[in-house]
Amino acid sequence: MTKLLSNTIEMIKPLDKKAMAEARARQDILTKPQGSLGRLEELSVQLAGVQGVSAYPQQVTTQMVYNFLGGGAGINVIARQVGARIIVVDMGVASELKPHPQLVSRKVAPGTRNMSLGPAMTAEQAIKAVETGIEIVTAEVAKGLDIVATGDMGIGNTTASSAICAVMTGRPVAEVSGRGTGIDDKQLAHKVAVVNKALAVNRPDSKQPLAVLAKVGGFEIGGLVGVMLAAAAHRLPVVIDGFISGAAALIAVELSPGLRNFLIAAHVSAEAGHRLLLNHLGLKPLLDLDLRLGEGTGAALGIFLSETAARVLAEMSTFAEAGVSTKSEPCNR
Amino acid sequence: MTKLLSNTIEMIKPLDKKAMAEARARQDILTKPQGSLGRLEELSVQLAGVQGVSAYPQQVTTQMVYNFLGGGAGINVIARQVGARIIVVDMGVASELKPHPQLVSRKVAPGTRNMSLGPAMTAEQAIKAVETGIEIVTAEVAKGLDIVATGDMGIGNTTASSAICAVMTGRPVAEVSGRGTGIDDKQLAHKVAVVNKALAVNRPDSKQPLAVLAKVGGFEIGGLVGVMLAAAAHRLPVVIDGFISGAAALIAVELSPGLRNFLIAAHVSAEAGHRLLLNHLGLKPLLDLDLRLGEGTGAALGIFLSETAARVLAEMSTFAEAGVSTKSEPCNR
Repeated sequence: MTKLLSNTIEMIKPLDKKAMAEARARQDILTKPQGSLGRLEELSVQLAGVQGVSAYPQQVTTQMVYNFLGGGAGINVIARQVGARIIVVDMGVASELKPHPQLVSRKVAPGTRNMSLGPAMTAEQAIKAVETGIEIVTAEVAKGLDIVATGDMGIGNTTASSAICAVMTGRPVAEVSGRGTGIDDKQLAHKVAVVNKALAVNRPDSKQPLAVLAKVGGFEIGGLVGVMLAAAAHRLPVVIDGFISGAAALIAVELSPGLRNFLIAAHVSAEAGHRLLLNHLGLKPLLDLDLRLGEGTGAALGIFLSETAARVLAEMSTFAEAGVSTKSEPCNR
Repeated sequence: MTKLLSNTIEMIKPLDKKAMAEARARQDILTKPQGSLGRLEELSVQLAGVQGVSAYPQQVTTQMVYNFLGGGAGINVIARQVGARIIVVDMGVASELKPHPQLVSRKVAPGTRNMSLGPAMTAEQAIKAVETGIEIVTAEVAKGLDIVATGDMGIGNTTASSAICAVMTGRPVAEVSGRGTGIDDKQLAHKVAVVNKALAVNRPDSKQPLAVLAKVGGFEIGGLVGVMLAAAAHRLPVVIDGFISGAAALIAVELSPGLRNFLIAAHVSAEAGHRLLLNHLGLKPLLDLDLRLGEGTGAALGIFLSETAARVLAEMSTFAEAGVSTKSEPCNR
């Protein structure tokens, strides 16, 4: 072995455990449920260990509560990286939000009603939610939109999504209900009971998708249904995020079966029922990174892969252009 | 249903079959084995169908044979998208290449010898190949390198990689030999026989990794070993591509077990033996997109995910910065 070679080997040191511990600790205080960025978190810890410095941030302009609007949420970071614009819409947050130039205030009502006692919303509210999604996409189309990615943030919206998923796929509630940000066994049993009661009380019919939305849905889910419909109507690809976007897709595809062709499943999330939902839609997820943050983070990564795919098709040379023979010897590169 | 809603649903049209057929036809004439970009190809066909126009390219400046140097290969497109610099090194192409400003000419010899008759290269040549990789990375470090992705292009180099994989993992040759760009059953049986003969003739010992490289390796594999060693020595993360990069990693990790921590497995390729190889190294691939082009295309996508992971860690707001309580009600977002 030569000196260059042995010197190089000697220079390889263990990972920096302190930097890794700091990175891990920092992941736990970032504004997301712990572990929700799945393997991207492990990857950042490894990168910190390799570089031997902890990746501490520059002071970012923060605004109380308005983390999305302030740019500090997970989706902001990923959207910046892929060059995507984020549109934050208040579809029906239960409390009053202060106006903000980047906040689109389209509150259908201050929260839905308790679906275990009756319909979550009226038929009119369901339509209003869907139309809001349509109007938002239509306005963006005028500004030059070329791909849409869906995302959401809503307390308790995996519960509504489980209900929709159970109705639309015909599977038992327990099979399509997961732990969201990390509820325990007892809370999960409660969630399943709530959804079962909601279905018993409302008796939604999968052939009446808007009624399903009204009975056991949420305003943000209705908005996403509209986003998908309008995007497909304008021939735009729609990258869908996790379980909540998937529930909206189930409603949207029942309204317009051809819409399925416009959907790109960004990833399969860690949420129980998501894979089953994607199978039901006939969609194959691009990524499987244990993501469970929501916010559209998976979908934003899907924009990147979509752009990659489109650019390869457009920018790669053909054999003829490159003067490369297609009649080469059999090879196994 | 309101008019806006029903109009929107009516506007959703089937995918453009002609554009899809054109996209599919174009994929087949791009400078890569057919289907080798796996699900990225399907995705581009879907995108063409959605947009209803075929994604035909602008005339690109092409140079005969020098497709990488001309920028028209798959890796060029993806590297441009992720902002990566490509370094094309001639480690030992059998024929003479015309000089080109972007071609790094470091030919160890014009091709290796037939490994089924004796060692593929001398011990000196093996070391020269590894040192070339070290020198190339060291020169790049001086210019400000922050992450390294490996890639390769070489006729027949899955055969050498199968041999290395069989030796280093101790698994039967048939289990670690795949179809490369698409050889048939008969050719595959021949490939397995060649590798078995090479192992019988050379009797490589997994505890002598440089001798394994010399006996059944290739110059590009040696170069990649050096790239990995030097990158880890300079505390740079190394994103490894497919089966050939994996074979190099087996050699490099045997030379320096701690190097394993610096490796990021970009993807699991369609090549038989690659998953087994990654398991042996204890690496979990980030992507599973049926890629089998090589050239570093999967690794370039891994750069993107690595950057995403690092940026999330650095740029996301903490709960304290955003004024978001960590003591919120149990929720299942």
